[in-house]
Amino acid sequence: MIDYDRLFSKDTGNFMRSPVRDIFRKVDLSAICSFAGGYPDAATFPLDDIRELCALVLDRYGAKAVQYGATQGVTELRQAISERYGVPVGNIQITTSSQQGIDVCTRILTDPGDVILTTSPTYLGALQSFKSYRAEIVPLQGFGEDGCGAAPEVLGRAKFCYVIPDFQNPGGTTMSLAERRQLVALSEKFGFVIVEDAPYRELRYSGEAVPTIWSLAPERTLHLGTFSKIFAPGFRLGWIFGPEELLDKIYVCKQSLDLCPPILDQYIAAEFMRSGRLDQNLKKSLELYRGKRDLMLSLLGEYMPEGVRWTHPEGGLFLFLTLPERLDTVAMYDRALAAGVAYVAGSFFYPDGSHRNTMRLNFSFLDSSRMEEGIKLLADVIASYL
Amino acid sequence: MIDYDRLFSKDTGNFMRSPVRDIFRKVDLSAICSFAGGYPDAATFPLDDIRELCALVLDRYGAKAVQYGATQGVTELRQAISERYGVPVGNIQITTSSQQGIDVCTRILTDPGDVILTTSPTYLGALQSFKSYRAEIVPLQGFGEDGCGAAPEVLGRAKFCYVIPDFQNPGGTTMSLAERRQLVALSEKFGFVIVEDAPYRELRYSGEAVPTIWSLAPERTLHLGTFSKIFAPGFRLGWIFGPEELLDKIYVCKQSLDLCPPILDQYIAAEFMRSGRLDQNLKKSLELYRGKRDLMLSLLGEYMPEGVRWTHPEGGLFLFLTLPERLDTVAMYDRALAAGVAYVAGSFFYPDGSHRNTMRLNFSFLDSSRMEEGIKLLADVIASYL
Repeated sequence: MIDYDRLFSKDTGNFMRSPVRDIFRKVDLSAICSFAGGYPDAATFPLDDIRELCALVLDRYGAKAVQYGATQGVTELRQAISERYGVPVGNIQITTSSQQGIDVCTRILTDPGDVILTTSPTYLGALQSFKSYRAEIVPLQGFGEDGCGAAPEVLGRAKFCYVIPDFQNPGGTTMSLAERRQLVALSEKFGFVIVEDAPYRELRYSGEAVPTIWSLAPERTLHLGTFSKIFAPGFRLGWIFGPEELLDKIYVCKQSLDLCPPILDQYIAAEFMRSGRLDQNLKKSLELYRGKRDLMLSLLGEYMPEGVRWTHPEGGLFLFLTLPERLDTVAMYDRALAAGVAYVAGSFFYPDGSHRNTMRLNFSFLDSSRMEEGIKLLADVIASYL
Repeated sequence: MIDYDRLFSKDTGNFMRSPVRDIFRKVDLSAICSFAGGYPDAATFPLDDIRELCALVLDRYGAKAVQYGATQGVTELRQAISERYGVPVGNIQITTSSQQGIDVCTRILTDPGDVILTTSPTYLGALQSFKSYRAEIVPLQGFGEDGCGAAPEVLGRAKFCYVIPDFQNPGGTTMSLAERRQLVALSEKFGFVIVEDAPYRELRYSGEAVPTIWSLAPERTLHLGTFSKIFAPGFRLGWIFGPEELLDKIYVCKQSLDLCPPILDQYIAAEFMRSGRLDQNLKKSLELYRGKRDLMLSLLGEYMPEGVRWTHPEGGLFLFLTLPERLDTVAMYDRALAAGVAYVAGSFFYPDGSHRNTMRLNFSFLDSSRMEEGIKLLADVIASYL
């Protein structure tokens, strides 16, 4: 037989399986109450608009809508994004999902052993990408007057710092303006860039918007956006704002990744924005999600045993639970699944695998009755360990 | 100012700009006679079917058609491909374009300095990907009884051999069954795998089909297919057939690349296959392209100066021209563009940049009258150097 192991790249030893996607592969999530994924509520998908816009785009652009297109993305979509966010077209690269945005930024900046700074916890899919490039992932303690918890020698070796400033995945927390400024100051001092991942930024249900890091320091920021949470994730479309020097490398890199993003999908997204439908749809989504967040907060208050704490996010899709120290959410998982409820163990979001007494709960996907059922089941499972 | 160069990965020094895509960026190709791209004829795009199938898919699958989906690809599409090609569903991974297929195969198998074997010339986009991983690209002389032109020591260090057996890009040539068997024997002897890139396989206009390498040695072959030439390239959808051990690595790698391929596009492609429309459409495309190939062959015979030779492909999208030794198609390029005709210099397809007296011509894109105009212009430009 062929010795496949001999053939694999060293990188493949660092490939990290997503525990979330592995659950999806094994369990029929429609049969249980799942707080595991980061799925938007299907009710927010503008299916009638998509049907209509597909026909409109094919009429208007004809063959151009399904032919090969520019690596940077379709001009109409870059223009629509430019108008919405006030960023010049030349600073916009369309990506085939914002996961690709993370991958391509990591790829152009990282060699094996290079330092990538992150918050801790942080997005699992980013850790997957960083590990696959054999980067040294250094978690920071925060961005305060008294430093960030990493030695100057380490900061000096950093290529970039990855943050999700708004309604972070998994914590649901938001960086203050002061923290964003501290991070910018740190990046100026040590010469690294900032990868600002902003998938949830437009999903704010309360409180005041904080300026993006991109707006504070565009010359040293790669800002990642996505249509997955404000339109539909199945389109796999995102964007990068960045300085032209960095976008130029990304442009060349993306050529060998997939030549160009999906074309018909880009035209549909452009029309969805330009026609004002994105704003109309987003308004309805925000109302729906605000209600869901509030419901989950009240259900947690009602059902969770004493000693369990959770975050109170102003937006996004996630809450983060901290159980009493001695509990282990990884060990608890099979009992939860058997009871009919799924979550993601919080330790997966910590680069060092610590904090085994935490878990991430998604509040966007389930409807009210399933959410109540799920929180009751989860509270019972937790209580059975206390 | 920020020192971007300090931050770039070593890989980025090896990123190779596509001369074709760089032309597209600068020149309005609709204004000249372009034989440069690998664009299908827009007349082959089933726009009415796409409009209809988009509506049908949204009706039938609802929110599922635009929600996140499985990393391996949508089951309905994998099943349709399985039925068409007689390959088990478990051996099929959907890719976001077959360019991504090349990238992901290279990524799971290659560390810097590893050997990748290729034919010479070969597909430019593959060379881009191989170089970006800092592989050592070793061109082979052929696959005959008397060897392949590489030393056993080099073959022993090879991770895989990349070939386009059917109507190769850029040559238009097809590997015989004997050559395919020699390659399999070589791969067995030296323990590497074969990446069989088959984007043009279904575009045969004359002669008899030769068995795929996948069918000869499925345990050591990664076979890449695409919808770009038989449906529409804007969908950016392809597939990999492979042994489960290799697909499993690709599955984990693809998670961190883009989570999953575009969902709505996959359902549309699945319906396009299952309804029999792909076969109907392909039949028409084959007739159209057969006529175009024959036309270009006769135009070349009519207009090209003496001393110019070309390949006679049985399928695909390309012809390859060899001019008299002393001519240089890279140097000739600006004069050609100024005259109103574009091609791709053949040397870009040679890993060592040799064969500067060659060029690739696409015969699928232009209509008859533009093709005749373009060949006349090109013949005049070449004649002006003789």
